[in-house]
Amino acid sequence: MTRHQTLRRALVEGRLFTAMAAHNPLSARLAEEAGFDGIWGSGFELSASHAVPDANILSMDTHLAMMRAIAAATGLPLIADIDTGFGNAVNVSYIVPQYEAAGASAVVMEDKTFPKDTSLRDGGRQELVRIEEFQGKVAAAVCARQDRDFVVIARTEALIAGQGQTEALRRAQAYEEAGADAILVHSKQKTPDEILSFIDAWRGAVPLVLVPTAYPQLTEADIAALGKVGIVIYGNHAIRAAVAGMRRVFAQIRREGGIRGVDAYLPAVADILALQGDAAMRDIEARFLR
Amino acid sequence: MTRHQTLRRALVEGRLFTAMAAHNPLSARLAEEAGFDGIWGSGFELSASHAVPDANILSMDTHLAMMRAIAAATGLPLIADIDTGFGNAVNVSYIVPQYEAAGASAVVMEDKTFPKDTSLRDGGRQELVRIEEFQGKVAAAVCARQDRDFVVIARTEALIAGQGQTEALRRAQAYEEAGADAILVHSKQKTPDEILSFIDAWRGAVPLVLVPTAYPQLTEADIAALGKVGIVIYGNHAIRAAVAGMRRVFAQIRREGGIRGVDAYLPAVADILALQGDAAMRDIEARFLR
Amino acid sequence: MTRHQTLRRALVEGRLFTAMAAHNPLSARLAEEAGFDGIWGSGFELSASHAVPDANILSMDTHLAMMRAIAAATGLPLIADIDTGFGNAVNVSYIVPQYEAAGASAVVMEDKTFPKDTSLRDGGRQELVRIEEFQGKVAAAVCARQDRDFVVIARTEALIAGQGQTEALRRAQAYEEAGADAILVHSKQKTPDEILSFIDAWRGAVPLVLVPTAYPQLTEADIAALGKVGIVIYGNHAIRAAVAGMRRVFAQIRREGGIRGVDAYLPAVADILALQGDAAMRDIEARFLR
Amino acid sequence: MTRHQTLRRALVEGRLFTAMAAHNPLSARLAEEAGFDGIWGSGFELSASHAVPDANILSMDTHLAMMRAIAAATGLPLIADIDTGFGNAVNVSYIVPQYEAAGASAVVMEDKTFPKDTSLRDGGRQELVRIEEFQGKVAAAVCARQDRDFVVIARTEALIAGQGQTEALRRAQAYEEAGADAILVHSKQKTPDEILSFIDAWRGAVPLVLVPTAYPQLTEADIAALGKVGIVIYGNHAIRAAVAGMRRVFAQIRREGGIRGVDAYLPAVADILALQGDAAMRDIEARFLR
Repeated sequence: MTRHQTLRRALVEGRLFTAMAAHNPLSARLAEEAGFDGIWGSGFELSASHAVPDANILSMDTHLAMMRAIAAATGLPLIADIDTGFGNAVNVSYIVPQYEAAGASAVVMEDKTFPKDTSLRDGGRQELVRIEEFQGKVAAAVCARQDRDFVVIARTEALIAGQGQTEALRRAQAYEEAGADAILVHSKQKTPDEILSFIDAWRGAVPLVLVPTAYPQLTEADIAALGKVGIVIYGNHAIRAAVAGMRRVFAQIRREGGIRGVDAYLPAVADILALQGDAAMRDIEARFLR
Repeated sequence: MTRHQTLRRALVEGRLFTAMAAHNPLSARLAEEAGFDGIWGSGFELSASHAVPDANILSMDTHLAMMRAIAAATGLPLIADIDTGFGNAVNVSYIVPQYEAAGASAVVMEDKTFPKDTSLRDGGRQELVRIEEFQGKVAAAVCARQDRDFVVIARTEALIAGQGQTEALRRAQAYEEAGADAILVHSKQKTPDEILSFIDAWRGAVPLVLVPTAYPQLTEADIAALGKVGIVIYGNHAIRAAVAGMRRVFAQIRREGGIRGVDAYLPAVADILALQGDAAMRDIEARFLR
Repeated sequence: MTRHQTLRRALVEGRLFTAMAAHNPLSARLAEEAGFDGIWGSGFELSASHAVPDANILSMDTHLAMMRAIAAATGLPLIADIDTGFGNAVNVSYIVPQYEAAGASAVVMEDKTFPKDTSLRDGGRQELVRIEEFQGKVAAAVCARQDRDFVVIARTEALIAGQGQTEALRRAQAYEEAGADAILVHSKQKTPDEILSFIDAWRGAVPLVLVPTAYPQLTEADIAALGKVGIVIYGNHAIRAAVAGMRRVFAQIRREGGIRGVDAYLPAVADILALQGDAAMRDIEARFLR
Repeated sequence: MTRHQTLRRALVEGRLFTAMAAHNPLSARLAEEAGFDGIWGSGFELSASHAVPDANILSMDTHLAMMRAIAAATGLPLIADIDTGFGNAVNVSYIVPQYEAAGASAVVMEDKTFPKDTSLRDGGRQELVRIEEFQGKVAAAVCARQDRDFVVIARTEALIAGQGQTEALRRAQAYEEAGADAILVHSKQKTPDEILSFIDAWRGAVPLVLVPTAYPQLTEADIAALGKVGIVIYGNHAIRAAVAGMRRVFAQIRREGGIRGVDAYLPAVADILALQGDAAMRDIEARFLR
């Protein structure tokens, strides 16, 4: 079973699929090690790791190269965050095959204008494109994929943009009609009420995708019980965890004027070598270095 | 004062300069926030972040692009780890200007053969090139720099390769004669004795550079008291800290089936936005979005 | 005198500056060899060399990398074609320093919407952004440059978009007010009448830039005599010449079933080696390979 | 039938396969248009197009990105020139899957040391690695491919290095034993005698590959009649043709002070648009821009 099929089957069978954000291959490998079902190739995390805003500052090539590296480093399905599709339906037609060739098993495309602004910030610029325009982009993505198991997920930012549930439902339905395999609906309300209300009202045939950053109290068990959600994405917890880890260690080293204190509890260098695939490399050496 | 001058002056004035490893611009920015003097553009950390061995598996372009991004994200001097120089003296001549244009203030080049093996592993392949050959590479690097304040650091792996102090001193002296501005001497012994003995015997005019990964008990105060060391590099603590942070968080999310628990102690999304330079971007918006 | 100063001085002194399009460093080096004053880092040529439409299909990183390689290969000022600025004024603020660091001495930015369509095609999508919006982008570019001699050229597509001379003049003047160092005015009419009429009516203080692809009858002597034009750009003649050369040779090889016939008139391999800088490399070898 | 199968079948069936060098997707598309059977993803041409020597100055990533772009632009099998494999057998193990994922149908790897020097220059550095070492690299490449139809071609530079026919035959046979699907044997003698003698003496089961740059008098008909050659590669005629075309046009423009003269015989802009796939893009627009 290919990675594409693994993801596709999870959507079809209605088992909740969990994806952790990654900003580099190492974070993806750690997510695999921990037991997540897939990787979220997050534009927010990649931008954060480059210390630039999540507003199409990074070039598409930077994201695509990272997807390629992540796909090579894990065996899990990779869901690539392509923001607004880096342009119009023409751009989408040209880039979806590149993401597929990079090893992604899915793309998520959102219905905002280019350049996007991050969804997570109060007061950001949140403008949506016309429904028909975005339907064209979804249809272009579906048409451009090579493997029919490659998943196209349409993401509506109608709630983020303050346009309300009716508009969100209207868009979600329109995107399903255009061929989307799943609908990601995003909310930044501090409670899950808005999302729960949307899910309750959803009558579509395709599963929903949630990103519960703003309402962390909603558990996987809660979500699974709702019955209409196919994927839960943890959208920024890898980078936040990495920041927490580095801040603590950096501060302690400066405070103590040395590394003795942190060395006592950090993973050993040998642990990092193992994550880098040292054993596989030594096997190659033994077989082919003559 | 430019970044090049900051680093150059630290070397001249004999004040100990501390550099923290970074594998992406965010880790560099956190190092700056914590108060380190400079950034170590580590090949080991970059390889680890890509989940591949530190053995010239990544292409030079990948490293160079990361140096460019790191230099853009901080105001600190960046010391780029160019491994063995990606080939011979000809390659060095072509790449040093690229690293300088990328924003690095220094390069560290080591006297092993290409492709290198990581210095940190027991039983790795550790072969040194001839002294004359490496002198040619050092001289080529010195000749290729555009700005005279750009720093060329020669790194000898003689101790790592088990060739003893006499050979290490012979090489260090030869590299100084070839024009190196500083000498990095590496050791993987579990105590600082080998390094302390080398420092004691060193009669060169240029400062030394230490990477105390294996002997963390040596503090900055200890090193400063030795009087011959210009730079201390913490070579892998950013990636080890990030791994520690992600492992803990990923495991807890899987264990608890949700993010409520980790959300309580992770940095807020707003903290990440601040690290991404959100304030600067909103200022640009206010001035130029019309 | 730096390259930036060379270009800046030509604009100030009113001497006509000629720039030839390049799609790779080799074509730039040939342009330098032939005696052009500068290089046009053409998005059209780069897209054509990648066999994709000139419609923001290629990522900005691809163009930026090519600018870096071109700047390294010649000593001439490089005028980078940044299309519409790859987004809004925020994007412009982030990318201008990158183009400057890449070695470009100028950018040309056009007032169309993103993603752009090529200007040269009948029936293309040609929509302009609001004047105020584009003024903000010009001002952002001017503010973002590090070196005051770096040149910001605003390009209006008002004539291409069929909006007439009055609108073109209105836009050109507004862009000068926003800080543009020169105004590129583009026309695809088969005679120079439209352009000549615009030039005659132009009352601005900054020089104009022409791209006479569609009206090749206008010579440099004609243009110089007009007195208001600072730069003439030959926008696609490198790639058209390369296509002509390859088509002839490829067809002959297939027709003859071998390379004997073409070998008689093609440049020798030694000529290509010379263009690659073989002499400089052999000098490096003689000095540093030991 | 996939591209891999097309190439594989040509080798098995003993029909002579002709490959033209390309340095970008456009030259590849022109080769396809002219009727060649495949594309040679030439390191020499790519280096030349970047105006740097063919001596591992360009990073592997640059070559790999170009292979990806070329494979996307044509339907022909692409034979990637990976020089010496960018390191040892370990590097080969990591890069072959990347070339395969990039869309190449074959790699050619040569038995020189890294960094290589171009084979075409008198007096270059031409050192060969030990036979056993190169056998390990060939075996690593064969083991690393995902699709069994992906072709691994071993290239011996024994004749180029002046080591004579006996050594060349010994190496060719050793590489076949290590799993190579074909043997490229290179010569820079001005007549085909050396190559013809080698072919006559060759007793291996796998086909040979020729690059008749130095001995252009040998036609495809001549080669086909020999019966042991599977592929003929025209290694640098695209870049030489492009240089010829650009030199002529650039000189004429400078001489005439304008483009009127060259415009008369250059391909029209509409021809270039067609090569860029304008028709396919307009079809996408018609279907998906709403």
